[in-house]
Amino acid sequence: MRVVQIGICGLGTVGSGVYEILKRNGGLISSRANCAIEVTHVGARRDHPNCDTQSTRVSRDVFDVAKDPDIDIVVELIGGTSVAFDLVMMSINNGKHVVTANKALIAENGAEIFAAAAQRGVTVAYEAAVAGGIPIIKVLREGLAGNQINWLAGIINGTSNFILSEMASKQREFADVLKEAQEKGYAEADPTFDIEGVDAAHKLAILASIAFAMPLNIEDIYMEGITQLQPCDVTYAADLGYVIKHLGVARQTTEGVELRVHPTLVPVSCLLAGVNDVLNAVMIHSDALGSSLFYGRGAGSEPTASSVIADIVDISRVIDNPPSTWVSALGCQLEALDAPKMVPMECVETCFYLRFAMRDTPGALSDATKILAETSISIEAIVQKEQPAGADFVDVIVVTDRVREAECKQAVSQIEALSTVHGSVVTIRLERLDD
Amino acid sequence: MRVVQIGICGLGTVGSGVYEILKRNGGLISSRANCAIEVTHVGARRDHPNCDTQSTRVSRDVFDVAKDPDIDIVVELIGGTSVAFDLVMMSINNGKHVVTANKALIAENGAEIFAAAAQRGVTVAYEAAVAGGIPIIKVLREGLAGNQINWLAGIINGTSNFILSEMASKQREFADVLKEAQEKGYAEADPTFDIEGVDAAHKLAILASIAFAMPLNIEDIYMEGITQLQPCDVTYAADLGYVIKHLGVARQTTEGVELRVHPTLVPVSCLLAGVNDVLNAVMIHSDALGSSLFYGRGAGSEPTASSVIADIVDISRVIDNPPSTWVSALGCQLEALDAPKMVPMECVETCFYLRFAMRDTPGALSDATKILAETSISIEAIVQKEQPAGADFVDVIVVTDRVREAECKQAVSQIEALSTVHGSVVTIRLERLDD
Repeated sequence: MRVVQIGICGLGTVGSGVYEILKRNGGLISSRANCAIEVTHVGARRDHPNCDTQSTRVSRDVFDVAKDPDIDIVVELIGGTSVAFDLVMMSINNGKHVVTANKALIAENGAEIFAAAAQRGVTVAYEAAVAGGIPIIKVLREGLAGNQINWLAGIINGTSNFILSEMASKQREFADVLKEAQEKGYAEADPTFDIEGVDAAHKLAILASIAFAMPLNIEDIYMEGITQLQPCDVTYAADLGYVIKHLGVARQTTEGVELRVHPTLVPVSCLLAGVNDVLNAVMIHSDALGSSLFYGRGAGSEPTASSVIADIVDISRVIDNPPSTWVSALGCQLEALDAPKMVPMECVETCFYLRFAMRDTPGALSDATKILAETSISIEAIVQKEQPAGADFVDVIVVTDRVREAECKQAVSQIEALSTVHGSVVTIRLERLDD
Repeated sequence: MRVVQIGICGLGTVGSGVYEILKRNGGLISSRANCAIEVTHVGARRDHPNCDTQSTRVSRDVFDVAKDPDIDIVVELIGGTSVAFDLVMMSINNGKHVVTANKALIAENGAEIFAAAAQRGVTVAYEAAVAGGIPIIKVLREGLAGNQINWLAGIINGTSNFILSEMASKQREFADVLKEAQEKGYAEADPTFDIEGVDAAHKLAILASIAFAMPLNIEDIYMEGITQLQPCDVTYAADLGYVIKHLGVARQTTEGVELRVHPTLVPVSCLLAGVNDVLNAVMIHSDALGSSLFYGRGAGSEPTASSVIADIVDISRVIDNPPSTWVSALGCQLEALDAPKMVPMECVETCFYLRFAMRDTPGALSDATKILAETSISIEAIVQKEQPAGADFVDVIVVTDRVREAECKQAVSQIEALSTVHGSVVTIRLERLDD
């Protein structure tokens, strides 16, 4: 039986998970791969308390793994885009296949990495880079190979989803939940990447590239995080039958491709609305299949390791076959990728949730709705809350029909200019996800 | 570029979908397969109104396709297990790869078919046989290759789910909705396979075989359909926070493997509870990933065709590679499949929903609960409904903790023997699906 030798670089949360699962489920995994898979070299600056690596060669310098002539597949789990990039490129140049869980690396340097791999005749696999244990890369590249993708929308950042779930179920403040997420180890000490949408944007770039056969593109992703969300909007949304989720949305329209990451109201009847805590889910709408949804753990040691091992099995099974018969890195042949026209954010059409504080005087509401009517914005729902005792203003919530971002902004600035309206209009996009 | 020649046998709902999608998305599909895929022969007893087959060779005898020396892949979409079996075996013997959407054929004759294919060095792919367009076979065989599966639970019969969804949302009677389903073409003129659970059992046998590396086994599946369900139980379940779904459940326990198909109460907070109409979903619980869920259309022309084409692409890409490098038909190597100990239904442990009509006299409820206590059955919830004016009995609903089927039955027959209890106890299993 063919023995495929694995070198694991980085023995942190994910690396130790890969090591342990390969040991625990080795027989089963070999039977599925139809070859023996053995970890024969580990590159890690320090030992991991849960990993007994005594029977494995361990190097403190990860580059020693990439230089090891016996290694077939280098598993990059050190993270970041500097050392990881050098390690992946050295591995490729040394004729090794690469498996990585590094979304930033693929989103930012994927083009260069995939081109180098194609030239050297090796594979770079990255299932674990998007939505952790959910095999969403495989679903998009292979399972839906017959489909044109119309759009996809994903809850692809676990930390943001944990914070939003807690805000919704317990009426908590953003800052308060963030602190708990950091204590629980869900959010990094510097949580910017998670809560400002950068991490979700990296993953969206990868999904969109496969879905639309376009080059990886993070520059053109509109990005908005969850730091500005108020608990009252979470509550008002619930009253109207919506849940606020942080979504990555990629949509192919007649005007081009939209890529955006932002808080979004989704109807409570949509399965995405029921995805809570650190769970991830990606909804896909494609021409043949219609709507489909893929749900599971988007982070954590063994869920992420599950995807890393699926990649290892896929590569191991076909390792001696000609590269032209492997699944291409981004689904289509690299030379078939085509940069589409990108739709600028002001031209993107969504529904909107608007909230503003209004002095409850005769005609005030009518002035506001008149502005919406004059901008041709249809109102799906409007609620004027009761005036709290002693307050000067009442909250007014409007749910609009689909309208271009620029037109909504124009109406919003006119509403803000009304003498009866106090402060700015809170504006959150809303997607029905039903077509 | 390599040209892979496809022969489609059967030009009904699914066959016409395959034909049309290959035409519509041909360029994209070729780019994903890295070869040209051409339908060069169609076997169909009659033309399909939506299919323009003028430029394709058409035979009225499907066996002509299996005999066509130019055909690489025979797509069997005629259904049934007699002609379809002969066609698939002839195709294999003639050295052709096979793609089929035929769940009955795979569940009943899979062992013989896969063995013949392995011997002849061809592939038999059947993604479309389970859950239509959801790539659940690929997920189980490849995406979760690193995992031991603990259990899976699926809504895998669209007709049953449509009927249950209508009963729940509109308080309709079973027979009434079934009639509508037949008129809409969801249910066959003879709907037995759908509503008695046979179709779901076929699919469950396939999923369980892959999940637990066991031979296909439909004989040992416990099977119960939805024909006995009363609207009042759907309503009472909803009042208690549950939705009744028809589930196929496969579970690996310390005592062996359970395979069963039956109506089941699931908590409304479980994503499966939100899967309505003809939609399908499969929830999987595995050691590394934990819970995951895969949702989409389980039937229909293009959703099913989507899976057929994914199989065609997978085969076409690797068609010239050695068979040992293909994904094995049931995930593991055929010789590694091992028949596990099967758990007989009376030893299966689930929670239960019980309903009985009771004369509301002092001590009556206490007599019933005493029986449950003496059988060591814990009560999770108990509700005694108000006595309708003029009625002699009140409805009592009990939700139990986990208990063996045999012990529950014993308690139920004792409750039925009480002089205060009228008629039989309605018994429906309940699964929390949270571990």
